[in-house]
Amino acid sequence: MADILELHMANEGPVVVQRAPSLTRLVIAAPPANALSLAVMDALLAGLAEAAADKTNRVVVIAGEGKVFSAGHDLKELTGHRSDPDGGRAFFAATMQKCAELMQAIVRHPSPVIAEVNGLATAAGCQLVASCDLAIASEEAQFCTPGVNIGLFCSTPMVALSRNLSPKHAMEMLLTGETIDARSARDFGLVNRVVPPEYLGTVVGKYATTIASKSAATVKTGKEAFYRQAEMGLTDAYAYTAEVMVENMLAKDAEEGIGAFLQKRKPEWTHE
Amino acid sequence: MADILELHMANEGPVVVQRAPSLTRLVIAAPPANALSLAVMDALLAGLAEAAADKTNRVVVIAGEGKVFSAGHDLKELTGHRSDPDGGRAFFAATMQKCAELMQAIVRHPSPVIAEVNGLATAAGCQLVASCDLAIASEEAQFCTPGVNIGLFCSTPMVALSRNLSPKHAMEMLLTGETIDARSARDFGLVNRVVPPEYLGTVVGKYATTIASKSAATVKTGKEAFYRQAEMGLTDAYAYTAEVMVENMLAKDAEEGIGAFLQKRKPEWTHE
Amino acid sequence: MADILELHMANEGPVVVQRAPSLTRLVIAAPPANALSLAVMDALLAGLAEAAADKTNRVVVIAGEGKVFSAGHDLKELTGHRSDPDGGRAFFAATMQKCAELMQAIVRHPSPVIAEVNGLATAAGCQLVASCDLAIASEEAQFCTPGVNIGLFCSTPMVALSRNLSPKHAMEMLLTGETIDARSARDFGLVNRVVPPEYLGTVVGKYATTIASKSAATVKTGKEAFYRQAEMGLTDAYAYTAEVMVENMLAKDAEEGIGAFLQKRKPEWTHE
Repeated sequence: MADILELHMANEGPVVVQRAPSLTRLVIAAPPANALSLAVMDALLAGLAEAAADKTNRVVVIAGEGKVFSAGHDLKELTGHRSDPDGGRAFFAATMQKCAELMQAIVRHPSPVIAEVNGLATAAGCQLVASCDLAIASEEAQFCTPGVNIGLFCSTPMVALSRNLSPKHAMEMLLTGETIDARSARDFGLVNRVVPPEYLGTVVGKYATTIASKSAATVKTGKEAFYRQAEMGLTDAYAYTAEVMVENMLAKDAEEGIGAFLQKRKPEWTHE
Repeated sequence: MADILELHMANEGPVVVQRAPSLTRLVIAAPPANALSLAVMDALLAGLAEAAADKTNRVVVIAGEGKVFSAGHDLKELTGHRSDPDGGRAFFAATMQKCAELMQAIVRHPSPVIAEVNGLATAAGCQLVASCDLAIASEEAQFCTPGVNIGLFCSTPMVALSRNLSPKHAMEMLLTGETIDARSARDFGLVNRVVPPEYLGTVVGKYATTIASKSAATVKTGKEAFYRQAEMGLTDAYAYTAEVMVENMLAKDAEEGIGAFLQKRKPEWTHE
Repeated sequence: MADILELHMANEGPVVVQRAPSLTRLVIAAPPANALSLAVMDALLAGLAEAAADKTNRVVVIAGEGKVFSAGHDLKELTGHRSDPDGGRAFFAATMQKCAELMQAIVRHPSPVIAEVNGLATAAGCQLVASCDLAIASEEAQFCTPGVNIGLFCSTPMVALSRNLSPKHAMEMLLTGETIDARSARDFGLVNRVVPPEYLGTVVGKYATTIASKSAATVKTGKEAFYRQAEMGLTDAYAYTAEVMVENMLAKDAEEGIGAFLQKRKPEWTHE
């Protein structure tokens, strides 16, 4: 994506934060599995929070370094806490709550979050893909929720998975633990697009550039409304979104955008 | 469709109402964009209300005249009200509420409503397609929710869109504003069928004829139950539909229909 | 499937119960239509209850004998009760409640339930497929909800159908009553896989064997969580499943499974 947006690396921790004028790219760099240890989840949350606070940010991309996107929870870290006085209960609870917090931070983020899926995404790694607003996958990407194979059903991953896939497809992944390829993931609704690995960065960059060209205030409004109305009945959803539309119409960027459209010129968005 | 059902044109306003023995066809005739101005929405609502009151009506078709199905809200009309003393707030609210009312009038209509999508369906025009019970599209039809391009996120369209498409597909349309073709719309679940443009009327007519041959009372019962149970949990949905089935069993048309089936003859429905 | 798991037949009623070490196979044997009479539904419920009580059971398969999977409710039985003093109301209510009970017994069953769809599945027979956790269909299988043709809308079937298919596809089946083939059923999300008829038993057997190799306690926990979280908003779903994951982590089988994984050995599940 370096040919599209000039990136500036902010650190070299378990998550590398790359910044460009309108983009934050969070690269999980915990080889070889890019497991979601507490440290990695904290770093992702910090990166998301920074991007949310940055008025110039428009899009977040989450990617994985190396051959794996993310293999999910760090089983060694979890197992290490079995010798805690409470048998690990407190640490397990902290991990699961952190994971739930991370996934919801993506859904609630003011900017669209795109998963750039270079390789294997398993368990909470698969959930991370499902939780993003958009997901672009390399042809070499694979997806599974194999917790059932190790006696730990992918119960938090299923929350995101079952909101993307039809129940039969989600259940097959959860009950068999078997791996699906990128094309199946696209057919099932888990990813938007599958591209040759050498074009993955370019295609994600094009999505990012497209979305970055829109009004940030409008995108924020719309993304928030999308997930809120999804949990409502039809009548409430319409009452709520009709109000959102009225406020949106009265906001500066709609006046500018509609005016520009009618005058056949390019809009200039406020940047606040 | 003239070869299937003889149509009688009722008026020549912004929505042409065509009637046949069991069919009401509402054609948006506001070229070139078939925009959903307040007048067009009122005319569609009036056409739907008339069809609902007509005991002989069995199916409603919504179509667009010319090359466009509908380009959504009338931006010139909306913009014209920015000079109102309230900056347009009251008019915008009236428009959004009218739009929500129209979409719900389709969902709550006693007859199935079929979208006959001849061409481009954008924003609230795309929402109109998504709100219909069935949608048949010409190969030349295209779909988008491009509000984001003009600073006005398609927040009411998303209500219908997100109840038809998987979240990733809906979000891609909403965030990028890009256009999908008819086949993608079919693959994503937005339309039932894609046909060559010269057969569009014929295919819609076949669906209409098929549905018109059923018991109107039964179809009304079933359509209402469909949308009501969709908003319930599983236990409530079963308790509710089990009751619906019992009442349906005790109604005249079920007695006639099941009797005819067991006696291998054609049923004769009550027409009340 | 006899080449995969040695089956022992338990009875020869309207539902043949076949047992193998970890499998219960319930074969609807009420030719030619395999209709869901009260007796068949009671026998299926009894078979499901036995399987649930059997600590060695891991998977349930529901199949149909002959060319039909199941043609749904027994219309002759229902019609026979029109001469009851109450016009059939009590019997119809008992039938619909039994049907709702059967479908929910599948969803709430501790073991995954697989539909082995050999042939035509209509109305409540189609609902039976939709209600199972997984469904494998022969290429010769067909699906429809034709109640509308006989004046009795498939209102209870729609509960399961609309939770598997997109609204446009479900509505097309319900409003037209027309039959879809196995590939369409797969594309619409109603079945997981379509196989040549001669391999149907083998493929179902492979799914059963795969699932039977997992920890029963883990599968039970996960299946229950799947359907419960599906009815919750995102925040509640995460709060609930995070707790499920913590308890799952502290259970014996997760300790064994994760330990075995880290030590690169095969896990040995508790059997309780």
